[in-house]
Amino acid sequence: MGSDLDQIYAPVAADLEALARLLRRELASSDPFISGLVDHVLSAQGKLIRPALALLSASACGGADEQRLALAGTVELVHVASLIHDDIIDAADLRRGVPTVNARWGNQVAVLVGDYLFATAFGLISRVRHSQVAPAIAEAAVLMSRAEIMAAETGNRPHEDEARYYAIIGGKTAALFSAACRCGALLAGAPRATADAMAEFGFRWGVAFQITDDALDLTGDPGLLGKPTGSDIAAGKITLPVIAALQNAPGPDRDRVLGMLQGPQDVGSRDELRELLDRLGGLRHAMDAAHRLAGIAAAALDVLPDGPAKASLLLLADFVVVRTR
Amino acid sequence: MGSDLDQIYAPVAADLEALARLLRRELASSDPFISGLVDHVLSAQGKLIRPALALLSASACGGADEQRLALAGTVELVHVASLIHDDIIDAADLRRGVPTVNARWGNQVAVLVGDYLFATAFGLISRVRHSQVAPAIAEAAVLMSRAEIMAAETGNRPHEDEARYYAIIGGKTAALFSAACRCGALLAGAPRATADAMAEFGFRWGVAFQITDDALDLTGDPGLLGKPTGSDIAAGKITLPVIAALQNAPGPDRDRVLGMLQGPQDVGSRDELRELLDRLGGLRHAMDAAHRLAGIAAAALDVLPDGPAKASLLLLADFVVVRTR
Repeated sequence: MGSDLDQIYAPVAADLEALARLLRRELASSDPFISGLVDHVLSAQGKLIRPALALLSASACGGADEQRLALAGTVELVHVASLIHDDIIDAADLRRGVPTVNARWGNQVAVLVGDYLFATAFGLISRVRHSQVAPAIAEAAVLMSRAEIMAAETGNRPHEDEARYYAIIGGKTAALFSAACRCGALLAGAPRATADAMAEFGFRWGVAFQITDDALDLTGDPGLLGKPTGSDIAAGKITLPVIAALQNAPGPDRDRVLGMLQGPQDVGSRDELRELLDRLGGLRHAMDAAHRLAGIAAAALDVLPDGPAKASLLLLADFVVVRTR
Repeated sequence: MGSDLDQIYAPVAADLEALARLLRRELASSDPFISGLVDHVLSAQGKLIRPALALLSASACGGADEQRLALAGTVELVHVASLIHDDIIDAADLRRGVPTVNARWGNQVAVLVGDYLFATAFGLISRVRHSQVAPAIAEAAVLMSRAEIMAAETGNRPHEDEARYYAIIGGKTAALFSAACRCGALLAGAPRATADAMAEFGFRWGVAFQITDDALDLTGDPGLLGKPTGSDIAAGKITLPVIAALQNAPGPDRDRVLGMLQGPQDVGSRDELRELLDRLGGLRHAMDAAHRLAGIAAAALDVLPDGPAKASLLLLADFVVVRTR
């Protein structure tokens, strides 16, 4: 998908290069320990989807406000900070193909590095001159942390609450995508209705993205993903494929799924669970939902004039449900 | 010191009551797990020194801008969030006389609750209509996290670098006090020179506060402090009394101090260390430094017109070095 994304990002390729320089500049430190941490964090560059969406949204709304780079940097830093804290919570060892901060420096440093990136993000966005932008980003960060707390509480107790699943991923993942798109539009001077439509696009797209992500944890290739698969199940996280499978499962299958989720797991038992979820229609249900949401996201873009940035956003709406990493 | 503080806070007592309501409102949640966490965090109210300084600074500069409450809430939330994350790092069980979030709900939830309070703080301050206020708070948060990373790296390796100690507590503690005072002045419409003087007051006061705090860890009464003493030493943290004692120590005493810091510690050995630091002049050196800084802080207030808020700030400059909790 790398080269596909490169093509989709083409309208904002120069901005994404400027973004990398901005992040290095914002996080520069004369302390060798801090600069080593920053190098590590920035070296494992992800897909940059949040900044790309912010920049494409700004471009699609006709804006060339230079503050779009600060927005792009902010959403990437908030995302990376939350990943670093998530990796503590999940005790994850590998992220984007490299050791996590907690694996390499311990949980204590990882807590602080996440805080440092959060604070740097808010510093960047607080200097943007648009009264609605920083509040929208802060609100997304509030929704993210609230949803993560709800997810942490859900913890290992199996449940089949599809509404709760959507509430959690809406906050955990989609809120920041939504804010990125809304703020891109706002910085481009878009009218209120357009900014709302872009926020809708980002939210629906983000939910589809997370459903796909959760399905990839069951079906994906660890080599392409840069992280182990099956980790959600190993952590007892109940994702949409599981919830949907449980809804349709006859009694014995239901007991088997619940038993597999609660018992100790090895590669063999995870493969067995995946096959069972597939047979019970859980994976299909999840991917159908992702496709439906991607369609709603694409429809929200009707407010935009045609052009290369809008074309890229439409391609992203297609790609969100077929990605393999 | 409780009643002393009540008297000092008198000019802003009504604001501090409104602050408690504002924090409850900002952190309200329909999720019972989140509201339980919030109740716990808000129930263990601290000394509210940061919001009190922000409010007294605003009042001393003649301002009645209602946004001062958002500022007060922000600095308290940033502080509480950093305490919650510090308690993870220090594996602390008790804070303000009640169990820490990590002790009661585990490190994972504590990471997220800290993030939630940080995000809520930035949401509050991002809605304040003054272009320099949110950036000043974000900068303080950046300095805090950078200093905490430096402190974490210093870790257990003994060192005698007084400049590094001041750099760390300047970022970890004084930066937020400084921003609280600066922003209080800015919201009151104070001219640049006055805001700078208030920032100077807050910074020097904050350094004096932290030195006293570090000394109290050696000499304080656990009952009054609401937390165990000796925890810095147990964690191998090198504070000013230790640094100063090492500078003056003859070889054998020096070896004893270093050995005590690195070896296993019980109450008896901590008492012995405290006596040794006292005899070597380390505690005296630290308290002398705190007194000197409190004097510089008080002098910065010369720019202010006389009045009850200025009088309270001057009293705080006296109290910072004689407090017992």
